Amino acid sequence: MALANAKQLAIKERAQRVIPGGMYGHESTGLLPENFPQFLARAKGARMWDLDGNEYIDYLCAYGPNLFGYGYEPIEEAARAQAELGDTLTAPSAAMVDLAEAFVEQVSHADWAKFCKNGTDATSMAIVTARAFKGRRKILCAEGAYHGAAHWCTPIRTGTVAEDRAHIVFFQYNDPQSLEDAFKANEGDVAGVIATPFRHEVFSDQFLPDPEYARLARRLCDEADALLIVDDVRAGFRIARDCSWEKVGVRPDLSCWGKCFANGHPISALLGSDKARDAAISTFVTGSFWFSAVPMAAGVRTLREIRDRTADRSRTAGTATWFRSPADGARDNADVPVRRGPGLPYRLRMVERMPRARRLFPSLSQSVRIGGAWRGRAKRYAERSRGRVPCGQVEP
Amino acid sequence: MALANAKQLAIKERAQRVIPGGMYGHESTGLLPENFPQFLARAKGARMWDLDGNEYIDYLCAYGPNLFGYGYEPIEEAARAQAELGDTLTAPSAAMVDLAEAFVEQVSHADWAKFCKNGTDATSMAIVTARAFKGRRKILCAEGAYHGAAHWCTPIRTGTVAEDRAHIVFFQYNDPQSLEDAFKANEGDVAGVIATPFRHEVFSDQFLPDPEYARLARRLCDEADALLIVDDVRAGFRIARDCSWEKVGVRPDLSCWGKCFANGHPISALLGSDKARDAAISTFVTGSFWFSAVPMAAGVRTLREIRDRTADRSRTAGTATWFRSPADGARDNADVPVRRGPGLPYRLRMVERMPRARRLFPSLSQSVRIGGAWRGRAKRYAERSRGRVPCGQVEP
Repeated sequence: MALANAKQLAIKERAQRVIPGGMYGHESTGLLPENFPQFLARAKGARMWDLDGNEYIDYLCAYGPNLFGYGYEPIEEAARAQAELGDTLTAPSAAMVDLAEAFVEQVSHADWAKFCKNGTDATSMAIVTARAFKGRRKILCAEGAYHGAAHWCTPIRTGTVAEDRAHIVFFQYNDPQSLEDAFKANEGDVAGVIATPFRHEVFSDQFLPDPEYARLARRLCDEADALLIVDDVRAGFRIARDCSWEKVGVRPDLSCWGKCFANGHPISALLGSDKARDAAISTFVTGSFWFSAVPMAAGVRTLREIRDRTADRSRTAGTATWFRSPADGARDNADVPVRRGPGLPYRLRMVERMPRARRLFPSLSQSVRIGGAWRGRAKRYAERSRGRVPCGQVEP
Repeated sequence: MALANAKQLAIKERAQRVIPGGMYGHESTGLLPENFPQFLARAKGARMWDLDGNEYIDYLCAYGPNLFGYGYEPIEEAARAQAELGDTLTAPSAAMVDLAEAFVEQVSHADWAKFCKNGTDATSMAIVTARAFKGRRKILCAEGAYHGAAHWCTPIRTGTVAEDRAHIVFFQYNDPQSLEDAFKANEGDVAGVIATPFRHEVFSDQFLPDPEYARLARRLCDEADALLIVDDVRAGFRIARDCSWEKVGVRPDLSCWGKCFANGHPISALLGSDKARDAAISTFVTGSFWFSAVPMAAGVRTLREIRDRTADRSRTAGTATWFRSPADGARDNADVPVRRGPGLPYRLRMVERMPRARRLFPSLSQSVRIGGAWRGRAKRYAERSRGRVPCGQVEP
């Protein structure tokens, strides 16, 4: 059944004129099928509506930020109350200290927090901190891992220069020998290792870290007096209610957070242990909106929900397992190609007939990890996955 | 008279434990006198209140973002209405296209817009775009100019590596010969020139660009097929209701915006002409919250205020002139040291007896440029400037 799309077509045409390529970044239209709803009118919980009134179930969670559902009232209430008092002022509000304390309480390795806006701010701040720690240069990084879109890490290098990653040393994820070799080859100049907590690249299967590899990373960093960084921007609070590598018994010196910890309000963070505190003090990093109070108030409330809603943990793990079953069955179904990943149940790559659209669904697995609200949607999806469900689209 | 400060002292102590150095970036406590109110409870219009209930007049405008006063109702109303519909979703809202169109209408050189979060995002995106334009590497940059806190431009280089600015070429601001030499020395490899619209470094006097220098920058860029970038993050909409270099008759290919165009809501932008459109399409830049709808809705409303409140223009220019007079008189007064700057009236460096606190007042001039709300505050300041006004502080 064809959906109404007159308003969508009109605004896409306007966007083409005033936005390069019609859109950019992870919302880029380059990989989208022509009839994909590029603009949304509103969202609530797990549902979204486009400009023409069509309703969708959202499996992408805003590419990560949505943890408890859109417009989740307890968090929005905290945000509105802070907005009444003030947001971006000439000084921070008490919410900044509350949020740093909440993180220190929630995340085992953390003794302090610094807040920023983009996930890339947090990873960039992490490598600056690691380099400041002992005045070394080399950052060891798994080949193909996504750590943001700054010059030193963007996966598409157009417009960057070779020197931007002069001291980024690549090794193979989960390969102890490769990691050891990288340390040896750069002896005396290793500032740190930056690691994704599990392998979650957009275009390949996901897999968990081998605990031995994670422990080796910790040991090699200690021996070399380098800092271990876990980039938890994507995975944070989706695998654990702590740093994700707590699951494999490894504590980093620094961890990067973003996306979901204020349930969609714009904020990211670098957490660190006391060992890295002086290095964190010695660097200069800032941004016009890094001290804004509203996302911090929302973050305080979101962290409280994460801490207190322990019942959701098993409930959502159960939902995830349950969710996997019909999709597994549909794995060979042309309509629902599935990428599996351990830890998180899998990634759906829907819409075989629009293969390039699969890029849109890196984060489905995130949606079912926390937040019981997803169960109903998962069920509805599962029912529909036996039919044809272009892009999670629901006929009105 | 001593102000109440029990709550301030208590929260500063908590901040010391969970935030490296007690604070960082432009809110860093390193340059603050001990009794400075580091945290605020609320703000409205031009006034702020600390945790102990002390009232202050704010001359810093949140270091730039505050244009029409804190909690300015027409803009907050637009923000709240959008928040009801949704903020960070799996796709942008129509407000994104509205905002891009409003910018294209308002800023003469602009044919398109890309939005991001930090001013640094906009300047980093600008140099990536300039490099992508013809595949060249060199970015010409005035020595000492502030373009953000990324690895390639942070003024404090701790934790960065030499290669981060391998292809940043420095010249002297307002010095045509120096600019010409920089072009010659890098012939065939100049990607672009990034220029502040007027010289506004924090620790030195401000001055306007020599129009001849600005025109030369335009001509040399054209001859070399390089892009001219104006970094309007700080000065945008404080000097002109257009790109600031319209004042000297020079149109850039790219301009960077941030801070004030959503009156404190977190958003920044890169604007460009058609010439740079393909380059802008070819690069990959993104951030988790770059497509959030609330700051865009606030931005649409702020741009409308900037466009329509033409009466404010002469009114605030008048206020600025008026404001300057008593401060000029006080230039030799130990209580009110003043840094002059053309274009914008001056910068106040208050509180001679707390000389390091002068760093806190780079943006006073911004406060009197747009927004009639400032007149009363300016008057009040002027009265008080004859007495002792530590840090713009007002006794309750």
